[in-house]
Amino acid sequence: MIVILSNKITEERIAEIVHHIERHEVTAHVSKGVDRTVVGIIGKASPALAEQLRQLSGVEQVVKISKSYKLASRDFHPDNTVIRIGDVSIGGDELVIMGGPCAVESPEQIDEIARLVKASGAQVLRGGAFKPRTGPYSFQGVGVEGLVMMAEAGKKHGLLTITEVMTPEYVDVCAEYADILQVGTRNMQNFDLLRKLGTIQTPVLLKRGFSSTYDEFLNAAEYILAGGNPNVMLCERGIRTFEPYTRNTLDLAAIPALQTLSHLPVISDPSHGTGRRELVEPMCKASVAAGANGLIVEMHTDPDNSMTGDGVQSLFPDQFAKLMLDLEQLAPLCGKRFDTKKEAVLAR
Amino acid sequence: MIVILSNKITEERIAEIVHHIERHEVTAHVSKGVDRTVVGIIGKASPALAEQLRQLSGVEQVVKISKSYKLASRDFHPDNTVIRIGDVSIGGDELVIMGGPCAVESPEQIDEIARLVKASGAQVLRGGAFKPRTGPYSFQGVGVEGLVMMAEAGKKHGLLTITEVMTPEYVDVCAEYADILQVGTRNMQNFDLLRKLGTIQTPVLLKRGFSSTYDEFLNAAEYILAGGNPNVMLCERGIRTFEPYTRNTLDLAAIPALQTLSHLPVISDPSHGTGRRELVEPMCKASVAAGANGLIVEMHTDPDNSMTGDGVQSLFPDQFAKLMLDLEQLAPLCGKRFDTKKEAVLAR
Amino acid sequence: MIVILSNKITEERIAEIVHHIERHEVTAHVSKGVDRTVVGIIGKASPALAEQLRQLSGVEQVVKISKSYKLASRDFHPDNTVIRIGDVSIGGDELVIMGGPCAVESPEQIDEIARLVKASGAQVLRGGAFKPRTGPYSFQGVGVEGLVMMAEAGKKHGLLTITEVMTPEYVDVCAEYADILQVGTRNMQNFDLLRKLGTIQTPVLLKRGFSSTYDEFLNAAEYILAGGNPNVMLCERGIRTFEPYTRNTLDLAAIPALQTLSHLPVISDPSHGTGRRELVEPMCKASVAAGANGLIVEMHTDPDNSMTGDGVQSLFPDQFAKLMLDLEQLAPLCGKRFDTKKEAVLAR
Amino acid sequence: MIVILSNKITEERIAEIVHHIERHEVTAHVSKGVDRTVVGIIGKASPALAEQLRQLSGVEQVVKISKSYKLASRDFHPDNTVIRIGDVSIGGDELVIMGGPCAVESPEQIDEIARLVKASGAQVLRGGAFKPRTGPYSFQGVGVEGLVMMAEAGKKHGLLTITEVMTPEYVDVCAEYADILQVGTRNMQNFDLLRKLGTIQTPVLLKRGFSSTYDEFLNAAEYILAGGNPNVMLCERGIRTFEPYTRNTLDLAAIPALQTLSHLPVISDPSHGTGRRELVEPMCKASVAAGANGLIVEMHTDPDNSMTGDGVQSLFPDQFAKLMLDLEQLAPLCGKRFDTKKEAVLAR
Repeated sequence: MIVILSNKITEERIAEIVHHIERHEVTAHVSKGVDRTVVGIIGKASPALAEQLRQLSGVEQVVKISKSYKLASRDFHPDNTVIRIGDVSIGGDELVIMGGPCAVESPEQIDEIARLVKASGAQVLRGGAFKPRTGPYSFQGVGVEGLVMMAEAGKKHGLLTITEVMTPEYVDVCAEYADILQVGTRNMQNFDLLRKLGTIQTPVLLKRGFSSTYDEFLNAAEYILAGGNPNVMLCERGIRTFEPYTRNTLDLAAIPALQTLSHLPVISDPSHGTGRRELVEPMCKASVAAGANGLIVEMHTDPDNSMTGDGVQSLFPDQFAKLMLDLEQLAPLCGKRFDTKKEAVLAR
Repeated sequence: MIVILSNKITEERIAEIVHHIERHEVTAHVSKGVDRTVVGIIGKASPALAEQLRQLSGVEQVVKISKSYKLASRDFHPDNTVIRIGDVSIGGDELVIMGGPCAVESPEQIDEIARLVKASGAQVLRGGAFKPRTGPYSFQGVGVEGLVMMAEAGKKHGLLTITEVMTPEYVDVCAEYADILQVGTRNMQNFDLLRKLGTIQTPVLLKRGFSSTYDEFLNAAEYILAGGNPNVMLCERGIRTFEPYTRNTLDLAAIPALQTLSHLPVISDPSHGTGRRELVEPMCKASVAAGANGLIVEMHTDPDNSMTGDGVQSLFPDQFAKLMLDLEQLAPLCGKRFDTKKEAVLAR
Repeated sequence: MIVILSNKITEERIAEIVHHIERHEVTAHVSKGVDRTVVGIIGKASPALAEQLRQLSGVEQVVKISKSYKLASRDFHPDNTVIRIGDVSIGGDELVIMGGPCAVESPEQIDEIARLVKASGAQVLRGGAFKPRTGPYSFQGVGVEGLVMMAEAGKKHGLLTITEVMTPEYVDVCAEYADILQVGTRNMQNFDLLRKLGTIQTPVLLKRGFSSTYDEFLNAAEYILAGGNPNVMLCERGIRTFEPYTRNTLDLAAIPALQTLSHLPVISDPSHGTGRRELVEPMCKASVAAGANGLIVEMHTDPDNSMTGDGVQSLFPDQFAKLMLDLEQLAPLCGKRFDTKKEAVLAR
Repeated sequence: MIVILSNKITEERIAEIVHHIERHEVTAHVSKGVDRTVVGIIGKASPALAEQLRQLSGVEQVVKISKSYKLASRDFHPDNTVIRIGDVSIGGDELVIMGGPCAVESPEQIDEIARLVKASGAQVLRGGAFKPRTGPYSFQGVGVEGLVMMAEAGKKHGLLTITEVMTPEYVDVCAEYADILQVGTRNMQNFDLLRKLGTIQTPVLLKRGFSSTYDEFLNAAEYILAGGNPNVMLCERGIRTFEPYTRNTLDLAAIPALQTLSHLPVISDPSHGTGRRELVEPMCKASVAAGANGLIVEMHTDPDNSMTGDGVQSLFPDQFAKLMLDLEQLAPLCGKRFDTKKEAVLAR
C-alpha cells in the first residue's frame, strides 16, 4: 500500500501519520519527492487500514497494491476452478449452455421447453420461479410450485436446472429442487443472501450488478467463497450505460478480464445483456469467441405471450437450435468443446 | 398506451396484434401514417400488457402514457405527504437535519456525538448498527447492541433516531429501537425487504439505488406504499458516473424532479453523494436551495479513526455546528424553517 | 410523430397545439384516452417540428416514429454499402484488417511495421500523423511529414493506408496521402469537419463518440453522406462507463445493431476499446463473431518505447501475426473471408 | 510519480525499468514490499514518461502524483482569477448572470430579449449565431449576421455579450463582435479550436464535455492558457448519465471541486444541465449556493416558437425576472453580491 501525502504537509503531521500506520504492525517507509511525500507500507496491511488512511487529513491518495479479495483471485488460486455437476463440467474445456424461459409458467410450458433445450444439445434448463420485478404490480413468479415443475422437467429430459433465489430464507428450498442457484443483478450486493449461499455447497451463478465494477463483483463472490462454498461462477449480463437502444450494454471484455483476475468460470447472458432478440445470436457467438465458459440464453415456445415481458429477448426454439449448431462449430476454434449430439440423434 | 408498429407489417399481423390487445378489455384504435402504423389503446391498460406488447413481433416501440407507479405519484396524491414523528414534521415547511456517524462504535462515541448533534440544532441522530460492506473482511457494524446504544443516546439528548436495516428478518428489531428505518442504496431493489417494510408503520427513508432512474426509485417506493406503509421519504445520495474525483455524482435535480413526480418528502445525502469532506458543506447548502425537505449528514468526533473508513466524508463537530447556523439563515429563502435555538441556548 | 399531451390540458390549448402543428403542412389527428390526449401527426413531419412541439406548454412527450437520419438508414438503402478501394472491398464478405502503430514516428519505424502488417495478411496500414491529446504537453504527432512516410510505406508494401484528420483545413492534404481518413472519437460531432469530409470522395472511417448513442452516431454519419460522400464506415471503439479496469467498454452489440439500423460497414477497434494488450486478441475474435466488417488494431515493433503511451494496448508483431491466422479460420464461420496468403507465402 | 511493478517480475527486468526511467533525468528509488516492488521517481517527470512507463511490460500501475495541467491548477496560481470586462468582474465576489435565447433569430427578437435581460438586472446577453446540431437537417443558426444583431442589442442595452464559436476559422470574427466566446460541450476537446483561442485575449467560457472528467476539463483549459490567453472560465453544464428524465445530470459538486483544483471562475448552466424549464430555477439557486461565480440561463419571449427546440428549457421573461430577485437575496448568504438595481429602477 502506498500513501501519497498532500503537498503542504508539516513534518509533525507526517510523523503522526507514520505513527498511525505503525500501530497496525506494518512498517512505514517515507520518501520525500520534489512535489510530494510518499509513504510506502511494508507488511500485510489490512483493508481497514487503507480505509482509515484515506480519511486522515494530510493524506491525498491511498493506492492499494494488493487486492481486497483473496479467495476469488487468480493470484491465490492459479488454476481454473472447474465445477462438476453430474456429467457437466463448468470452467474447463466444455462449453455449457443454459437455456429456457425467463419464468416458469406451467408444467406443460416448462416440459415442452425442456424437451427442446435438450434436443438442441444444451446441458442446463433455466427458468425463474421467483422473479424480481421493478414494480409491485408486475407478475412475481409462481413460487415454490415452479421449482417443482422445473425439477420434474429437468429430470425427465436429463437436464441440470438453474433458478434464481432472491432472499436468504428461500435458499434451502431452492437448493433442494435446483442444481444451480442464480443470484440476480439487483442482489449482487445483498450480503445476507451471499452469506447464506456461502453455507451450502450448491453451485451459485452470481450475476454482475448492473453498475458494479469487476472489483466489486469479485468482492461479492468473495462473500460466498469466504463462507465455505467454492462453487461460484461469475455471469456478465450487461451494464447500465447511456445507450437507450439496448436494454443493457453487454461488456464482453469482462470475460477475459475476469478470467485474468480470477479462476472462477465466466458465463455470459446475451439475453439480458441486449434485451433484443435479433442481437442475442451474434452476442452469443461473440461471447464464446471472447472465451466464455458458458452461456445463459432465454428461449420460449410462445414469446409473444410470455408472462414477464421478457419474451422480446427470447429466442424461438428453431433459432435456439440453429444457434447450438453454430456454436458446435465455433467452440473448437475457441478452445472449447460443445457437442449437440445431432449426428447421434439423426443416426438413431 | 401507444404501440408503434414496424414499417413493413402486414395487414394480417396488425389484426393479430389488435386481437391480442383487445383480449385485455381495452380498445385498440389503429391509425395508419405515411411511415408507420400506430395503435392507441383506450382504457386502463395493465403494466403487464405493455410488457407483452413490447415482445410481439411487428411491434417496434411501446410508449407508456400512464406511469407504472400510482400510490407514489403526485397525480394520485396531489398534496405533499408530511410525516410527523414526535415534534418533527418531514415533508412540510420544516427543514429536517439528520446527523451522526457512519457507524455506531461505542456508547461513549454515540452519546458524545448525539450531544453535539442536538447542541447544533439538528433533529435526528443517524448511525449504522448494521453496515453493508463491499468486501467480507471489512467491519460489518456492531449489530443489535448498536441499536440499543443509539436509542439510549437519542432518548437522553431528545433526538429522533434513524438506522439502516439490511434484511427482512431484522426489520422488527430495528423498528423497536429506531424512529426511522433506512434502506441503503444497494437494497433499493431488495424486494423482500421492501415488502416487509410495507407491513409496518415506522417511517422509512429509501435511498436511491446508485444506478437507478427516478422511475425505478418511485417503483421501489411503491412496493412499500402498496404494502400499507404510507410513511416513505426518498433520499438522493448520488449516482455512479464516470467521474473518479467524487465518490458519486450527487444529482440535485432529482430533488425538484421527484417532488414534481411524487408527493413524498425528499432528503439529500451530500456525505455519500460526494465522499469528500470539503464538498459536503456546499452541497448541503445547494440541496436546501434546490428544495430538499431535509439532509442526512455524517459527523464524527474523531473521523481519523472512524471504523468504516467513511471518516473522509464526515464533518468535524465544529463544521457541522457552523453549517447548521448557515442553514438557519438559508432556509427561509427556500421556503423552509430551521431553528438552531442558538439564541435560546445562549440566553440560558 | 406522436404528441402526448399533459393530463390537465384544456380544450383551448389542445386547439392551439393542433393549429401549431397544421401550420407545418401535416395533419393532426386527436384521440382522447382515459388518462391522456394524444395527437398523431400524419404526413412528413420535419425534425424541427418535433423540437418545437417538445417545448410547447401542455406537451408532455413527443415520440418520433421516423428517424432523424435518412441517407444512413437501412430503411432508405436496404443493401449493404460496399466501399471498394483498389483490391479491397469493405462492407461485403471480405474481412478487412487495418494494423499499425498508434503514431507514425520515423520512416524506419513505419516501413518495418508495414512490412510486418503485410506479411501477416492484413490489407490496410494504420498510423497517426496528427494526434489528439488530452493535455497540451503530450506528443502531438509528427504532422504532414508523417503522412508522407506512411504513404511511402503503404505503397512499398502494397497496403492501403488510413490516418486521422482532426481539422477541416487538413482534410485535403490528408486525402492526398491516405486512402482512408479517420475521424476520431472526440471529433465525432465536429460538424465543420464532417461537412468538409462530405465534399470529397475519399472513404471516411467515423469513430463513435465515446459517449454517443447509436442515433447520434448515425446522425454524424448523415452529415458526411448529406454532403455527397457516400463512402462512410462506422467504427465502434468503446464507450465511457464507470468501469475503471478497461480504458473503455467495447460495446460489441453496436456491431449487429448498427448493421440493422444502417447499411454502412461497421469496423471494431479493440485496441482503444479495451486499452489492455491482453484483451485485444479475445475482443478481436469476439468482434468478428459479432459480425464486424473489419478490425483496426494497434501493432508496434517496440511498444515499450512508443511515443504516445498507447504501446500498452499495442500487440507485438508475433501476436498480430498469430491473430491473423486465427481470424482466417474464424472468418468463414461468420460469413466472411480472410486470407493471410500464408500458404502462398510458405510455398514461395 | 510512482511505478508499481507486477508481482512476478525478475531482478533483470527491474534493472531495465530503472534504466529506462533514469534516461529521463530523474532518479528511481526501488522499494521491495511483501507483495510488490515499487519504484518512486524523484525529480520532474514529464507526462510522456508516465505514458511510456504504463506500457512497459512488468509495470502494473503508474500513479501520477503531480497533475498533468499546471497553469490551470490552484497549486500553481493560489489566488482566484478575476476576469474584468468593462464594469463586470467574473471570478471575484460578483455573481454574474448571462441570459438570453438559445439562438439569435432576428434583430427584433434579440433586441427585445436584451431589454428584458437588462431590466432584470443581469450583466451579459447570451445568444447563439452558430449552432452545433446533432443532425444536418436541423436549424444551424443565422451565422455572422446574428453576431451583428447581438452586438447591437448588447451595446444598445448596456450588456456584455457571449456567443459560441465552433471552428478555428470563425474565432476572429466572433471575437470582433462578442465580449466572451463560448466553447460548446462537443468541442471541449477540439484541440485546434482551443489552440486558436489561446492566441487571443478575449475571455473564453469553456463548457465541460458531456462525458469529460474534471481532469480532462482542466487539461482542455490548459490548452488555452498555455497558448497565452489567461481569461478562461469553466462551465458545468451537465453530464451524460443513465437517467432519461433530465437531458443531462447537472453535477453541482463540480463547482466547489473545480474551485479547489483550479483558480479559474466556475459558471453553471442549469438550462442545458436539466433540459426542463421547471427545474431551471431550483438548479440556479442550488448552483449559487454551491458557490458558482455565475450562471448562464436561457430565456425567450416566445419559447413555444424558438427555432432550435431548446425553448423547452427556456424561462419566460417573468420567471427570469423573478429568479433575479431571488438571487439578489440569496447571493449575500453565499459570499457573493448581485444587485438587480430594482430599487433604483423603481425610484426613477
